[in-house]
Amino acid sequence: MNAFETPTVVVDWPAAIRNIAEASQACAARGVALRPHVKTHKNGRLAREQVRHGAVGVTVAKVAEAEYFVDEGMADVFVAYPTIGSQKARRLADLAHRARLIAGVESLTGIAGLDAAAGRAGATLDVRIEIETGLNRTGVAPADAVSLADAIGQSQHLHLEGVFTFRSTDFLSAAGRSADELGHEEGEMIVAAAELLRERGHAVTSVSAGSTPTYVSAAGVEGVTEVRPGTYVFHDAMTLDEGTCSVEDIALRVVASVVSTPRAGVAVIDAGSKTLGGDVGQTRLGSTGYGIVGDGLGTVVALNEEHGIVSLNPGCSVHVGDELTIVPMHVCTVVNLCDVVELGHGERLTIGARGLRT
Amino acid sequence: MNAFETPTVVVDWPAAIRNIAEASQACAARGVALRPHVKTHKNGRLAREQVRHGAVGVTVAKVAEAEYFVDEGMADVFVAYPTIGSQKARRLADLAHRARLIAGVESLTGIAGLDAAAGRAGATLDVRIEIETGLNRTGVAPADAVSLADAIGQSQHLHLEGVFTFRSTDFLSAAGRSADELGHEEGEMIVAAAELLRERGHAVTSVSAGSTPTYVSAAGVEGVTEVRPGTYVFHDAMTLDEGTCSVEDIALRVVASVVSTPRAGVAVIDAGSKTLGGDVGQTRLGSTGYGIVGDGLGTVVALNEEHGIVSLNPGCSVHVGDELTIVPMHVCTVVNLCDVVELGHGERLTIGARGLRT
Repeated sequence: MNAFETPTVVVDWPAAIRNIAEASQACAARGVALRPHVKTHKNGRLAREQVRHGAVGVTVAKVAEAEYFVDEGMADVFVAYPTIGSQKARRLADLAHRARLIAGVESLTGIAGLDAAAGRAGATLDVRIEIETGLNRTGVAPADAVSLADAIGQSQHLHLEGVFTFRSTDFLSAAGRSADELGHEEGEMIVAAAELLRERGHAVTSVSAGSTPTYVSAAGVEGVTEVRPGTYVFHDAMTLDEGTCSVEDIALRVVASVVSTPRAGVAVIDAGSKTLGGDVGQTRLGSTGYGIVGDGLGTVVALNEEHGIVSLNPGCSVHVGDELTIVPMHVCTVVNLCDVVELGHGERLTIGARGLRT
Repeated sequence: MNAFETPTVVVDWPAAIRNIAEASQACAARGVALRPHVKTHKNGRLAREQVRHGAVGVTVAKVAEAEYFVDEGMADVFVAYPTIGSQKARRLADLAHRARLIAGVESLTGIAGLDAAAGRAGATLDVRIEIETGLNRTGVAPADAVSLADAIGQSQHLHLEGVFTFRSTDFLSAAGRSADELGHEEGEMIVAAAELLRERGHAVTSVSAGSTPTYVSAAGVEGVTEVRPGTYVFHDAMTLDEGTCSVEDIALRVVASVVSTPRAGVAVIDAGSKTLGGDVGQTRLGSTGYGIVGDGLGTVVALNEEHGIVSLNPGCSVHVGDELTIVPMHVCTVVNLCDVVELGHGERLTIGARGLRT
């Protein structure tokens, strides 16, 4: 009898702890704070390990994630996302009585909502302005950050604490440029935004950038005070493809069973999009897929909900009932589909923040 | 204060019940059984409504789903998926003491495993052979079904009950052909497979086909005894695009808030891939995306985990804080990301089989 039934997700705990320690050391060596994005693992125990190894706190995207991680003992939480709506603002302000809470802002509407909620809660909220640096998602241009900083200055219950950005390596003008070069540029751009605000009379303490592929380079830029990688705790086929990690650093794998071998070179596994997620990308070997099948066996090239189609590499064959291990393309969305992950020896981690999206 | 926080999923219960009733009537008029695939909604109450309206039972993909739906009162469950592995086979055989259980098979390994498990459980399991009809996923060619039927005949504890297939309208040679034509062909192919087995001396009772776009046409083919649509209970942008439903039939929508309006023609919403799933497709208006934003506002054209990028239609504008309703591209993977869905007036459905994938 197997230790668990497939499909399942297995975490290599020692590898995860090594990844956590190495990131902490890289940041300490560069004199910047590490505030990991915990949407990757959504688990209190791993967040506590990150803090134990030197992280100053955690980053989340949603208020509900902040609530979970404060419950799990986090004392310093940054919601790096525009919190919009009176109920969410109230929940965030309430949390500020239980932990240090920092809120991201990028609109006057967001600032007004947080100010009102902080006032009603009798709290002061630290806020950071999100700067757009190429991803074309959320955030404002540095020039537009000035009016937001002015509005924060005129608010009753908000305190401008810093600026932040996110862009990683997957955006329109990034093609063909190295993660190192992009990370350095990212650092320079966010430092320039901070400087502009300072010139206009605003105190800016935190200057925060960085994703898993770019944080080391961004951390090397004078003036960057903090980085926020997330994926590094587990890594995945994307960070492997980017050269950000080696195979030995991969700390999470999906284990699936072969349920059919319909024709030569193809196997069907019991992990589909409800296990591997919907994120497709380029593997290091050049093939496009949802994950790399271990031991050089092949690539998951197509997904239905409960069927994964594996293209086997030349000379490889598998049998119905074989268990395959897969490095998923994007680990964050895979973890979000799990209630638990296996650590081996019957031990499990509960993905406590899974499904918390408000 | 709003009734719920975003992002959330709202089900129009009367529309869902209308969809359930209409499918039952369509099948009754054609004299075929309806056995809906309940992976779409993963909820016991909706399954009971389907049976109350005339469904003969339900279809699931995983043993864990079968366990949930038997717990929820289903008396007749078909696992339309190759059940592989001794533990899963044991669980399936155990369930056969509590409900009528039918298992899909498409390999000798699968047949041997189920036979052994049924023997140990002191049960007889009904099995159906999966026939491949174009999707190139799982299943065998009709000629190869004969040897599987022979093996079932020689088994101790299995009873050949029928044949089944799934192919819908999205496969290699389907391009440019109507759902009606494809459904008719699907029906003819599965009837031919049943006839071949009968010629070789095997009794075949159930001849099962059909997805939401094809089931009505497949049901019209003489010899088809059962159809298994799933999506029809809610519908989505895919079935809207295929012409299988009208906008009035859409019974599930995602409600999201605008969190940013970074530039003209673009809005960012708080529903990303962790809400809308990863399934992308063509909308009825020709644009490619993850969902259609209601009231003719636009299309969700890109997703990050917690950011949805909406391309607004010409002349449309929205403001930070606005709530938008979205018809998702593929409803099944959206529901699978929900712990609950809202029915309005504070009532909710628990997605009880969410995350059950073994």
